[in-house]
Amino acid sequence: MTSQFQKKAEAWSARFSEPMSELVKRYTSSVFFDKRLALVDIEGSLAHAAMLAAQGIIAADDLAAIEQGMTQIRGEIERGEFEWQLDLEDVHLNIEARLTSLIGIAGKRLHTGRSRNDQVATDIRLWLRGEIDRIVGLLGELRTALLDLAEQHAATIMPGFTHLQVAQPVTFGHHLMAYVEMFGRDAERLADCRRRVNRLPLGAAALAGTTYPIDREAVAKRLGFDEVCRNSLDAVSDRDFAIEFTAAAALIMTHVSRFSEELVLWMSSRVGFIDIADRFCTGSSIMPQKKNPDVPELARGKAGRVNGHLVALLTLMKGQPLAYNKDNQEDKEPLFDTVDTVADTLRIFAEMVAGITVKADAMRDAALQGFSTATDLADYLVKRGLPFRDAHEAVAKAVRVCVERGCDLADLSVEEMRQALPEVVTYLGDDLRDSLTLDGSVQSRNHIGGTAPEQVRQAIARARG
Amino acid sequence: MTSQFQKKAEAWSARFSEPMSELVKRYTSSVFFDKRLALVDIEGSLAHAAMLAAQGIIAADDLAAIEQGMTQIRGEIERGEFEWQLDLEDVHLNIEARLTSLIGIAGKRLHTGRSRNDQVATDIRLWLRGEIDRIVGLLGELRTALLDLAEQHAATIMPGFTHLQVAQPVTFGHHLMAYVEMFGRDAERLADCRRRVNRLPLGAAALAGTTYPIDREAVAKRLGFDEVCRNSLDAVSDRDFAIEFTAAAALIMTHVSRFSEELVLWMSSRVGFIDIADRFCTGSSIMPQKKNPDVPELARGKAGRVNGHLVALLTLMKGQPLAYNKDNQEDKEPLFDTVDTVADTLRIFAEMVAGITVKADAMRDAALQGFSTATDLADYLVKRGLPFRDAHEAVAKAVRVCVERGCDLADLSVEEMRQALPEVVTYLGDDLRDSLTLDGSVQSRNHIGGTAPEQVRQAIARARG
Amino acid sequence: MTSQFQKKAEAWSARFSEPMSELVKRYTSSVFFDKRLALVDIEGSLAHAAMLAAQGIIAADDLAAIEQGMTQIRGEIERGEFEWQLDLEDVHLNIEARLTSLIGIAGKRLHTGRSRNDQVATDIRLWLRGEIDRIVGLLGELRTALLDLAEQHAATIMPGFTHLQVAQPVTFGHHLMAYVEMFGRDAERLADCRRRVNRLPLGAAALAGTTYPIDREAVAKRLGFDEVCRNSLDAVSDRDFAIEFTAAAALIMTHVSRFSEELVLWMSSRVGFIDIADRFCTGSSIMPQKKNPDVPELARGKAGRVNGHLVALLTLMKGQPLAYNKDNQEDKEPLFDTVDTVADTLRIFAEMVAGITVKADAMRDAALQGFSTATDLADYLVKRGLPFRDAHEAVAKAVRVCVERGCDLADLSVEEMRQALPEVVTYLGDDLRDSLTLDGSVQSRNHIGGTAPEQVRQAIARARG
Amino acid sequence: MTSQFQKKAEAWSARFSEPMSELVKRYTSSVFFDKRLALVDIEGSLAHAAMLAAQGIIAADDLAAIEQGMTQIRGEIERGEFEWQLDLEDVHLNIEARLTSLIGIAGKRLHTGRSRNDQVATDIRLWLRGEIDRIVGLLGELRTALLDLAEQHAATIMPGFTHLQVAQPVTFGHHLMAYVEMFGRDAERLADCRRRVNRLPLGAAALAGTTYPIDREAVAKRLGFDEVCRNSLDAVSDRDFAIEFTAAAALIMTHVSRFSEELVLWMSSRVGFIDIADRFCTGSSIMPQKKNPDVPELARGKAGRVNGHLVALLTLMKGQPLAYNKDNQEDKEPLFDTVDTVADTLRIFAEMVAGITVKADAMRDAALQGFSTATDLADYLVKRGLPFRDAHEAVAKAVRVCVERGCDLADLSVEEMRQALPEVVTYLGDDLRDSLTLDGSVQSRNHIGGTAPEQVRQAIARARG
Repeated sequence: MTSQFQKKAEAWSARFSEPMSELVKRYTSSVFFDKRLALVDIEGSLAHAAMLAAQGIIAADDLAAIEQGMTQIRGEIERGEFEWQLDLEDVHLNIEARLTSLIGIAGKRLHTGRSRNDQVATDIRLWLRGEIDRIVGLLGELRTALLDLAEQHAATIMPGFTHLQVAQPVTFGHHLMAYVEMFGRDAERLADCRRRVNRLPLGAAALAGTTYPIDREAVAKRLGFDEVCRNSLDAVSDRDFAIEFTAAAALIMTHVSRFSEELVLWMSSRVGFIDIADRFCTGSSIMPQKKNPDVPELARGKAGRVNGHLVALLTLMKGQPLAYNKDNQEDKEPLFDTVDTVADTLRIFAEMVAGITVKADAMRDAALQGFSTATDLADYLVKRGLPFRDAHEAVAKAVRVCVERGCDLADLSVEEMRQALPEVVTYLGDDLRDSLTLDGSVQSRNHIGGTAPEQVRQAIARARG
Repeated sequence: MTSQFQKKAEAWSARFSEPMSELVKRYTSSVFFDKRLALVDIEGSLAHAAMLAAQGIIAADDLAAIEQGMTQIRGEIERGEFEWQLDLEDVHLNIEARLTSLIGIAGKRLHTGRSRNDQVATDIRLWLRGEIDRIVGLLGELRTALLDLAEQHAATIMPGFTHLQVAQPVTFGHHLMAYVEMFGRDAERLADCRRRVNRLPLGAAALAGTTYPIDREAVAKRLGFDEVCRNSLDAVSDRDFAIEFTAAAALIMTHVSRFSEELVLWMSSRVGFIDIADRFCTGSSIMPQKKNPDVPELARGKAGRVNGHLVALLTLMKGQPLAYNKDNQEDKEPLFDTVDTVADTLRIFAEMVAGITVKADAMRDAALQGFSTATDLADYLVKRGLPFRDAHEAVAKAVRVCVERGCDLADLSVEEMRQALPEVVTYLGDDLRDSLTLDGSVQSRNHIGGTAPEQVRQAIARARG
Repeated sequence: MTSQFQKKAEAWSARFSEPMSELVKRYTSSVFFDKRLALVDIEGSLAHAAMLAAQGIIAADDLAAIEQGMTQIRGEIERGEFEWQLDLEDVHLNIEARLTSLIGIAGKRLHTGRSRNDQVATDIRLWLRGEIDRIVGLLGELRTALLDLAEQHAATIMPGFTHLQVAQPVTFGHHLMAYVEMFGRDAERLADCRRRVNRLPLGAAALAGTTYPIDREAVAKRLGFDEVCRNSLDAVSDRDFAIEFTAAAALIMTHVSRFSEELVLWMSSRVGFIDIADRFCTGSSIMPQKKNPDVPELARGKAGRVNGHLVALLTLMKGQPLAYNKDNQEDKEPLFDTVDTVADTLRIFAEMVAGITVKADAMRDAALQGFSTATDLADYLVKRGLPFRDAHEAVAKAVRVCVERGCDLADLSVEEMRQALPEVVTYLGDDLRDSLTLDGSVQSRNHIGGTAPEQVRQAIARARG
Repeated sequence: MTSQFQKKAEAWSARFSEPMSELVKRYTSSVFFDKRLALVDIEGSLAHAAMLAAQGIIAADDLAAIEQGMTQIRGEIERGEFEWQLDLEDVHLNIEARLTSLIGIAGKRLHTGRSRNDQVATDIRLWLRGEIDRIVGLLGELRTALLDLAEQHAATIMPGFTHLQVAQPVTFGHHLMAYVEMFGRDAERLADCRRRVNRLPLGAAALAGTTYPIDREAVAKRLGFDEVCRNSLDAVSDRDFAIEFTAAAALIMTHVSRFSEELVLWMSSRVGFIDIADRFCTGSSIMPQKKNPDVPELARGKAGRVNGHLVALLTLMKGQPLAYNKDNQEDKEPLFDTVDTVADTLRIFAEMVAGITVKADAMRDAALQGFSTATDLADYLVKRGLPFRDAHEAVAKAVRVCVERGCDLADLSVEEMRQALPEVVTYLGDDLRDSLTLDGSVQSRNHIGGTAPEQVRQAIARARG
């Protein structure tokens, strides 16, 4: 008797009276993207088979044959020799059919006590767990690159911006450390997500569990899962773990997009804070002078891509009744592409950060524009007894005088300042100009989280910790 | 002297001091997806070259050489012989490099007066225009399939639902005609969108126009564009036409998802209104009895996919300064996949509708449940003088009596009805039960848009128009 | 006999055995946001009543009473005296209950031949049609403000950017005209959308049409609808018109976000191209010197808001079976907020554009950086016979020389240029430096869509049309 | 000297030369939605003031005055007497201005060493932390309601569905436990998110830290924060914690939408598995018989709302340069509405679950349709030695025979089965019909996660744990 899928060209099973339309085959087939799961599929099958044998559900000989067949199939896949067939719909049936053709009847016993529903859910989790670990590693590499650059520039002064207006001086190292924090939280989130990914669906079978005396804990242990999914209907149907991962990925890309926006801005000729090494840039087909920061621009655009995948997955799952529905096949491509996008982007950013040349002079020049130490002047007045709100108002008035004269606060002599601000003249000591230097400003913000170079160096040390 | 991209392995141009990193090449290259634009790229180049020659910007010999070279390249591409090179980044440089290797110096003259920025914008518009026409055709095929089925069932009675509760009887033909309307509006939207797609960017060059005496209207005419883009910065940088298309596509898939939801529901055993031919269904790897409506389920899931692409494109464009930025390279994959998803789905649905078997008896049985003619009874009372709000209340009371007795309205005799509703007894004539039949109910809704079979047939005739 | 909703505190209708939970009342009630539809609800009811009377379905006296009652109610609403009741769930029942309390039995006859399902669909369409007209007007005002500013700066030179790198000189007027084009397309899209909004659902009743001899065309004519919805199930259940509108609104906000990004950038101290009048800016609670471009920043953020509403509506409609489901009540808040966001933003931008001060000197200085005329130099070489690709390469080499020397192309004498580029020395005439001036560059891009001031002025004239 | 915001009607500060436009005031003001943060704003200010006094930055008298003033303000707010002023822009300035009007100069000292940037970030985190705790509580209440119902129906048999086709029998209790699992993971996610929310931004000041000798750990401790934000730029600008929360909320609503879909389906007359108490349902304005499950439908629609807010927040943050930009003001409304939507929905669902009446007979009848024990028959054959794939094929053939005869598997005698399946006749023992009973089927899936009533009861006990 031929098995079910050897006859799939004729009909899905004996219950069907006509073969699947070619159009439908192509529309519903997933093998050309889910073959990416092949190695974890085999890993899962081997653990399942070992448990079946240990429980006496299949014979030891069957297990040996399955292990031998799978070893060969794994080799064929790794060498690119495996022939993936559209007719066999997905990675699972392709491998099982090959197994049966290799080892015969034992291959037909592998699917005992499981279903494609719990099999695919297991595969995705196994695969995603590995990818999470890889991405956490890449986040670490990017953070290390940022830490290295921050360390060199713990005391390099640049203007800090709010509303893209010069706000207060900060150090470039401090600025980079903001991203170290962001990517650190991204790694935390992935670690949390991993705990929910790392649960074993296998044993849920189609939706209700199975009638065989299976040992799910044994399978979980062999595959490195933290625990088993505790409800079979939930195990085969929910994909919240994949959505949670994609949401975390969208935040990674959001952080990347913010950093990219700044890199593009910093490299534009009007700003000129940095240069990015030629090997990370491209030119123009028409404008010979162009050197474009393609990598951060593209990465910024790719933030949209991952946001889109998140929406795709949320939409997909919205209003789905229990248990498995074919809608769920659409979970894979967005998830795969999210992983690729995030991993490729992190890897290239980790390299690119090392290719950043900092133009410290331009940064300092810019910090001298825009009255960046106005707050320091206000603080000076407060420390001499003026309430903060009154100090704020007095300095705003001084700034207005400077705007009208086209000069900076530091350009006013103490005497001119006194003339400009008669209401607060008693608070204006001869030392007031000391509070207006860039270096004094950054050094004085010397508390945890502040921009003082000493704090930046401590933060770097903690992050390397 | 070697040309710019023959040396791209060394550096982007002479302005660059080191070659592009391999990682960056792969990250920024688009050739493996934008080669889909190859034929429209050639079409656009030929129109551009013809104009350059007509304007005396290049020589007639150059044009002849370009035409000959492009003919050969087109052949190579169609035969699958063209060698796409990652090093050459995108479809444009791949083709131009091949052209130059075939015809020499004339090939280097093709890019005169244009840039990749206006070239790629032209390519996308040419390609998308063709895809819109194809999708409008597929919407027509699906509507025809629905009309054919509606015609057979113009008088087949089923329960109309609101809140998935039985509401009033309708005909199955009428129900299908709702989708004919929806897909008709989808085609209208695409026609409107096409007008905004069909404008020529070429001539915008990199962003500012060109110094050559070009004739943009001639190029537009040759390529079948309705008009030229009227601002060069806008022409190379905005992608609103692609987003508008994707939004229209998301509505198509939303309509498909609604129809799919109903097909899945109608085919479930508790409802049993239809069967879908075996060739559109699949089975289960574990449950031998299963016949699953995979196609509508998958299509329902794919609605999420297109929603996701729409979000990707909107996010991509948000906050982009003028003019072209590399972010825009991310416009292609979502757009391409949207077109594929919509076209594949419409084609398979047009076929599948013809494979629907209607179970008219089950539909009628279901319409007899749930007091579907209660509104007709209220209308009966109104026509005899009771204000509508009082009639509504009286019938609600009758329904409650039936719910308690476990019977339907039609099961009450006139006498029982009078006993149940003493307040309105004077309005209850001996003919009241006539208003409670399914056929009377549907036939009486005989105005444009109503469910009377006569109206359904007229609607079909108009739609076939 | 009391009517249905006078007893709603006890139970929804006689069919119900217990009153609605207070929690459910609040959760399902819409009156506190849909009361915004009150005036169009009355307008629709009056047209419906007039038709009922014309068709002899209600008496002329009933119509007169309804008209008189509605006049009073409209006055109460306009004066803010109307008492909206949560118990009456929505705007429709609130008004109908008040009408019945004012005019008695005639009020109970108003709902003959209609349902809340077609009533609310009619209300939303009437309201949205008016809002579309208002937004199209606001787009016109913003375009006028942009045209006025563009006209003043048709010849003001600034650097055109791609990849935020200096690309080629353009005029500020030309740059602004890109937005005139974008907002023009936005208005086109709304006009197209309006045709699909402006169709009458009334007559669809609950879902199947009605048994009364109604005249839908008469109602459509009276209310200014272009046509009637041709299928009752579709009429009460689909909201694609609202989604289409929201997608068009998302594109408006996307265009606004791009303009905002540029305004913020142009106003930052490192760029300094413009100033925005104080009345459109805010300060800082701590930094006395700050003047922040809050309006464009907030508008940029609000692009996300409208994207979100679009996703909400698409998600809402995904997979909804026919016909009306309560999910659809969630269509209103996103739609209302989209209209408010777009209208408020356009109004404030139309005003703010008039408050922009252009710093032409800073723009010109910036255009002199970044080798903005490199393409012109390449074109110069091409016009003297060098193939474009070779010219591109030669100029790239010259740029590299300049980068190394820290000078601009215009700083090289003809002799230095010849020394730098021995391969192309025969193409370097004594007039080559003429091609490197900013004014020459912009004036030479003198074709439709190009940046030449003459073209910009023609584009302004066409847009004012 | 008057303070800064007492003169805000004239100009933002002395640096400004004209007052803010009325239109801009309304557009940029947040007080009418951020006043929701008033109590946490006061709580944060008191902690800040206490630290300032402890550090000697303000005097003990100032602190006493601030505490007294704030006590009065809190009272005014709680009693609804506080006058919120649009002119004062936001909750922070409104409270500070009131404080200064109450206590004079000490009020002007409160803002020493902080900025609105770190103040608002602190407020949001304090507020969101409380809301997370509330929502976790509501998830617990819903889970308890589900557990109570599951316990009653641990052995009530219903058909388990995949693809909305009858798959295998499960118990209703087991089905409900799938949702207990989902909502349990939702609570886990919120607990993880809370750790990232519960970090103190205060001390970051505008963006760079402050020059005062502040003690951030003391403020953190007083306010119950787990730790301080470790980088000032990051602290005032990132909102990833709010996006993470909203993503977790979107998953809650996705789970709610799935449950809602099932409730609506189960309550439709063709399925009839449950009834929902009248107090959670509404009627129709036209159809007197209707009783609609409005609550789950509306909740299903609200899933779109929260997905939309997530997209709004992600879009908002995409590409934002450091540090604070006004775009971030748009974070509040989506976040507030997300919290309200989730909390209201969970509360009403916890109540509604107790109002579900289960129709066990209809469930059992449905499980008898659709060959739900076909897998059990295949397992029977496997246990007697047939490989699974062959067993699957044999049973599929038997199902086809039944479909043709219009009967169920259980309707075939052992003899008829043997005739139908000659290839496997040797495996068909006289006991085969035992494997086809519903009760036998569910009881035999007796492993962790399986549907056996014993397992369901254990799962309930564990969840109550």
